[in-house]
Amino acid sequence: MEPFVLDERLARDSESIMQLGLCDLRLSHDSRWPWLILVPQRRNVSEIFDLAPLDQAVLTFEQVTVAAALKTVTGATKINIAAIGNIVRQLHVHIVARSEGDPNWPGPIWGFGQSVPYERPAFELMKNRILEACQ
Amino acid sequence: MEPFVLDERLARDSESIMQLGLCDLRLSHDSRWPWLILVPQRRNVSEIFDLAPLDQAVLTFEQVTVAAALKTVTGATKINIAAIGNIVRQLHVHIVARSEGDPNWPGPIWGFGQSVPYERPAFELMKNRILEACQ
Repeated sequence: MEPFVLDERLARDSESIMQLGLCDLRLSHDSRWPWLILVPQRRNVSEIFDLAPLDQAVLTFEQVTVAAALKTVTGATKINIAAIGNIVRQLHVHIVARSEGDPNWPGPIWGFGQSVPYERPAFELMKNRILEACQ
Repeated sequence: MEPFVLDERLARDSESIMQLGLCDLRLSHDSRWPWLILVPQRRNVSEIFDLAPLDQAVLTFEQVTVAAALKTVTGATKINIAAIGNIVRQLHVHIVARSEGDPNWPGPIWGFGQSVPYERPAFELMKNRILEACQ
């Protein structure tokens, strides 16, 4: 069987922080808002309805787990969850912590402005806090 | 028990077309892109992780059913699914049919431009096609 290959743009814009049962959990390099991305490790899947029913259920469980952890870590006003994929067609789910006063509040993050990379220690700190909250 | 009360903005911007097991399925009045909204009939829920686990599973099932139906009806390039809620806090899930060349392709629909209402016959046609595809 051919292996799963991560989309190049997802690989460039984010970094894997944990392998879940179905998904690769990735932290975006964009520090403007704590931004996680779940990528189901399945080939040739663009839409949630392309996944097998059991994978859909597992994806829901992983989304809920990660979203609740992100809320705990950040104390965000609202967690935004979205599967868009108009540009990157490989199925991926954004889970983003939004807070009043963030750079595009209350508008969406997608397509807004330029990414602001973390300093490496800040990235590692966010990663470790999320991993701890997911346990 | 207090009854479920739909958020006023959701009530104004969309119209109920079907009651599913958990959600009210609503069609947005904005004709720029076929746009459905699922509203779980549960009180005091803002985030997916506020739902009971069984409701989370049912929401996933209803999302997948409705998204696949919308793809069938529209032949869209990509279905966008999102639970954002920065403005309207009552949990609601957007399911939107996006096509190359639509008014903000490939950017997000949220916060973009002004709604363009359907003529009533076009609304009824879209509603009926979606209901047929959901069966």
